[in-house]
Amino acid sequence: MTSTTTPDQTHPLPEAGGPRPVEGHGDPATDRISPLGQALREATGGRWQHVREAARAELPVDLMLRDPALSIEAARDWTLETLQVINALGYSASGYPKEYGGLDDEGRSTVDFELAAHGDLSVAIKSGVQFGLFGGAVSALGTQWHHDRYLRDLIEMRLLGCYAMTEIGHGSDVASLETTLTFDPGGDEIVVHSPGPSARKAYIGGAARDARIAVVYGQLWVGEDCHGVHAVLVPIRDESGVALPGVTTGDHGAKGGLAGVDNGTLMFDRVRVPREMLLNRYGGVRDDGVYESPIDNPNRRFFTMLGTLVRGRISIASGGAVVARKALSIATRYAVARRQFSAPGHDGEVLLIDYLAHQRKLLPAIATSYALMFAQNELTERLQDLHEAPEKDQEAQRELETRAAGMKAMATRHGNDTAQMCREACGGAGYLAENGLTVLRQDADVFATFEGDNTVLLQLVAKGLLTNYKEMFGDLDMLGMVQFAARSFGGAVIERTAARPLINRLVAAAARRSEDEELLDRGWHLAMFEDRERHVLETLAGRLRKASKGEDSFEAFNSAQDHVLLAARTHMDRVILEAFVAGIEACSDPVAQDRLERLCDLYVLCSLEADSGWFQQHNRMSATRAKAITAQVNELCRALRPDAIALVEGMGIPEEWLGSTMLVEPSWTA
Amino acid sequence: MTSTTTPDQTHPLPEAGGPRPVEGHGDPATDRISPLGQALREATGGRWQHVREAARAELPVDLMLRDPALSIEAARDWTLETLQVINALGYSASGYPKEYGGLDDEGRSTVDFELAAHGDLSVAIKSGVQFGLFGGAVSALGTQWHHDRYLRDLIEMRLLGCYAMTEIGHGSDVASLETTLTFDPGGDEIVVHSPGPSARKAYIGGAARDARIAVVYGQLWVGEDCHGVHAVLVPIRDESGVALPGVTTGDHGAKGGLAGVDNGTLMFDRVRVPREMLLNRYGGVRDDGVYESPIDNPNRRFFTMLGTLVRGRISIASGGAVVARKALSIATRYAVARRQFSAPGHDGEVLLIDYLAHQRKLLPAIATSYALMFAQNELTERLQDLHEAPEKDQEAQRELETRAAGMKAMATRHGNDTAQMCREACGGAGYLAENGLTVLRQDADVFATFEGDNTVLLQLVAKGLLTNYKEMFGDLDMLGMVQFAARSFGGAVIERTAARPLINRLVAAAARRSEDEELLDRGWHLAMFEDRERHVLETLAGRLRKASKGEDSFEAFNSAQDHVLLAARTHMDRVILEAFVAGIEACSDPVAQDRLERLCDLYVLCSLEADSGWFQQHNRMSATRAKAITAQVNELCRALRPDAIALVEGMGIPEEWLGSTMLVEPSWTA
Repeated sequence: MTSTTTPDQTHPLPEAGGPRPVEGHGDPATDRISPLGQALREATGGRWQHVREAARAELPVDLMLRDPALSIEAARDWTLETLQVINALGYSASGYPKEYGGLDDEGRSTVDFELAAHGDLSVAIKSGVQFGLFGGAVSALGTQWHHDRYLRDLIEMRLLGCYAMTEIGHGSDVASLETTLTFDPGGDEIVVHSPGPSARKAYIGGAARDARIAVVYGQLWVGEDCHGVHAVLVPIRDESGVALPGVTTGDHGAKGGLAGVDNGTLMFDRVRVPREMLLNRYGGVRDDGVYESPIDNPNRRFFTMLGTLVRGRISIASGGAVVARKALSIATRYAVARRQFSAPGHDGEVLLIDYLAHQRKLLPAIATSYALMFAQNELTERLQDLHEAPEKDQEAQRELETRAAGMKAMATRHGNDTAQMCREACGGAGYLAENGLTVLRQDADVFATFEGDNTVLLQLVAKGLLTNYKEMFGDLDMLGMVQFAARSFGGAVIERTAARPLINRLVAAAARRSEDEELLDRGWHLAMFEDRERHVLETLAGRLRKASKGEDSFEAFNSAQDHVLLAARTHMDRVILEAFVAGIEACSDPVAQDRLERLCDLYVLCSLEADSGWFQQHNRMSATRAKAITAQVNELCRALRPDAIALVEGMGIPEEWLGSTMLVEPSWTA
Repeated sequence: MTSTTTPDQTHPLPEAGGPRPVEGHGDPATDRISPLGQALREATGGRWQHVREAARAELPVDLMLRDPALSIEAARDWTLETLQVINALGYSASGYPKEYGGLDDEGRSTVDFELAAHGDLSVAIKSGVQFGLFGGAVSALGTQWHHDRYLRDLIEMRLLGCYAMTEIGHGSDVASLETTLTFDPGGDEIVVHSPGPSARKAYIGGAARDARIAVVYGQLWVGEDCHGVHAVLVPIRDESGVALPGVTTGDHGAKGGLAGVDNGTLMFDRVRVPREMLLNRYGGVRDDGVYESPIDNPNRRFFTMLGTLVRGRISIASGGAVVARKALSIATRYAVARRQFSAPGHDGEVLLIDYLAHQRKLLPAIATSYALMFAQNELTERLQDLHEAPEKDQEAQRELETRAAGMKAMATRHGNDTAQMCREACGGAGYLAENGLTVLRQDADVFATFEGDNTVLLQLVAKGLLTNYKEMFGDLDMLGMVQFAARSFGGAVIERTAARPLINRLVAAAARRSEDEELLDRGWHLAMFEDRERHVLETLAGRLRKASKGEDSFEAFNSAQDHVLLAARTHMDRVILEAFVAGIEACSDPVAQDRLERLCDLYVLCSLEADSGWFQQHNRMSATRAKAITAQVNELCRALRPDAIALVEGMGIPEEWLGSTMLVEPSWTA
């Protein structure tokens, strides 16, 4: 699989030269939608709603759709060329400083990615590699020297790069990277070296073909001292695409999807670059050959450097959520047109959407998609607010990272599960590439494990919560801890979302209601989610504390791993619900607001239904209540069904972007 | 997408001429395994264990593995050629009568398919089209004339056919097919016609390229009378591959997987074939132009003809189960070699398999896979027993069809979910095609919706159970029904699996034990599964009966659709468990038997854990018990972990058949 790039494998870049015209491309989408659909778009569009509207109005439809039969090589060509057009249209580099051609808008940069993800995911991921990972590292970890030298070229795609962090032996465990970056005072150079086969950089987007330069992560050695993981810029190919001396590249070839992304491997055999190529914002080598860093604690330095990954995770979360919305847009449109089986006493055959089992597949997933839109908006706005804040707030930054990790895991899981469900809900038609679901599903598959494996990320969330917990309660004994937690939980252990006053009001009102009224009471919903999270976290903390006295700490943590993951999931469920509630409150259109309330009911009750074992086991739900919830879910599905099309319009994807032949040429209707 | 086949699209068949030598192919797998692995293979091999052993010993490894980067056209070539070799080796046509070259062994024919599915799934599906669907229809629906004329040629692949049942407008609803087969007494011919676009035959394997003849399903008209769905043989291409006059073929092109299967469409414009081409075993036109059938009731005739699909469903069930076993074989072998993250106080990094969350992913899926192996053996043996029985037992046949439908839905769901989980459990490596998981997952995806959509099939199962129920209790009032059900449930409403006396004994013994001892008591397990099934079915029957008095019958059934699907699922859970219990009892190796007992415990407790909401809601599980079950699942995972490799060896797939580069060249170890 791995081989040194030889001249016959070279692939010259398309002619350089900055922005290109959209000439030669087709029209943008027509995108005529219902008033309710439009009101829902406005309610869910968030701070960058105007960017979304502009993209829908101007992106040529043919940019959004890749021919699924293209060979790997042709798919790579198409992907690169398409990204260049999207770049020229201004949907890729918003996060960079204005002086280099960006908009200094971090939040919008993730919206750029999200908009690209509405089309072909290879284009979006290639954009993420160039502008998020590679460019993001140069921007965030580099200093003036790197910015002046590289930012404008990379923003305008005259310089294509890759992000060589992952090694084949060390997937999620970045601290264990083996690649060495050794300072050589003689030549004033950094020597980049891969000490063995498990140090090979792997899965690197751009490494197989297009990248000319790499941000390479490795252990920085200065003299006898290892200063931990740092990053350095290393040219890997010449202009014509031939690998430079000492660099061995490999091509991963066929993958489960993302055919247009040229993932590959990199090995370095004592490759030398000038000392200045080290991205030295958080740690570098002075002119006198001494290591220096603005952050003394090596652990904090490491996490600060990794903190630059936060934008990538927010972007992938948005992409996972788009996958679900796109799949639902296809499957729901099909379900309101496709008939199957006649029913006694009914005229003709029954529409798929009129089967309860079909409603039960589509509508809860639509409800979750709405929940995630609001939660994603909140996350993106917080990213931009922190970016703009005059002073760096460490705690807010850590909270953002925790939430980004959690959202990435939740949204990509939802995206993959929903795309799969939608594929199946369209039967054999769903399995034809021309109907738009299979390529989507395959491309998104890797979202579950890249940019941080979902299981690892959820652990990260739980550890973040436990850290808060420990800081709060470290010195109390168990009983005191629980009592104190009961008083202070709301304010401190678990930071709240934007809608704090509203949520407090709703929860307080719910406490005064009788059980009969509760089922659709938002305050009760919020209280149930909060109570679930608190109980799971408190019992986890207690369990770990007890266990840590006997066993070794790994065993203690490992034997509670299912509990750890549950804590993370229930935390994210609450965070997402609170964003949903805040979003509904802010909606100014009464009809849209009413539908959002029903979707929120459905989102909550499906979650309670799925966890009814837990709630009953912990005496928080009676058998009667559990039964009533199931009946209410069915009732909500029925109530929302007439608005099915408006609900998918509200998710913001023009029908022509779906690339689904069966919706355009419905030859399957009688 | 659809177009009349023109000469430049033709593709001549590879040279004909019966069986080919295996010359030119590589060696079979080495397949050295542990004694426990071997004992487990013998315990799970069933009646055709010798065929499985022979296949492992003789099938060349290169037949099992398709290059994932092949273009669609190249993949089709490779698939056809590989099937010809497998055919020559004797693994495809066992079900046909001996006088035409088969073995008259229906059960083994599904094992043939299963063995093919251990390799590339396009080959297996192409085999299923040729020998199961097309050949199966000629064999089962045709008579002596058809057998003499076609069976030997199709068995030896000199004649390639396709099975044109599905129409684009009518997926699972075969009774609504629009294609007409009109008897023309003038020419003594059948006129085959597609009246409109929704009558187009779609998704037909072989229709795009290789098939020369089709079994076409449509409504048979004789004079003024429509006699419902029948099938007729229609030549569609000449020897060189050019479509015959009146036949329009189309190519579905890229799909979600199965690149080697040439699925396509067919339209007929008043194509005439001799009357003899009608497959007339269950209904045809006499020489005097009068319709005649051995089955008077049109409804029963229709279902008798569809009954020939049962072997196909049993085959797909076996294929879905193989997908899970193959994916688990890859992911488990990876997990016992791959290390990630160091743990304080432990040497080196921790193996993936030692993380509880990872065990929780792999081991319950392994347990379910074992359960399905036993259930599949039972089903296959029953198929062959019914085939061999001197007299046709209508009720046994109906039961077999119900169970085949249920097994197809359960096993393909398990296959797809497990392949996906395994892909993710291997991280980025799992996303590279060279590691064997992505193509597997993509090829198997359609299993969930073809050969009967899983949701539709589960409804079929539930309807079968309700029919039994109604026959039994139709004349009793509600109270009488429930009382009677409580007495007779075991014996009649739900037919039991082979292990009836054993199971009665175990259940009776469990009733005498205290709650403390129960958790691992098989009798308690059986009682819980049986009780869940009975309660779900009884309440469903009551609900439908009550509802049917008010609303129309479609609404009554539809509003209970989630309940209907639950009834089917809980029924299948019990059937599968009982097969597992019987299989353990028959195991002669004490160590293997012990491990099977633990796997069965895990299978049961995971099911009880997943349904703990239901059990608590219906007062069948206390909160304490629910908690104990979760702890016991974790404990079982830990207990089974040391035997992980032997457990996957026992699933019967030689490591070299897995086609997983990372297992052969583990460059990711330090």
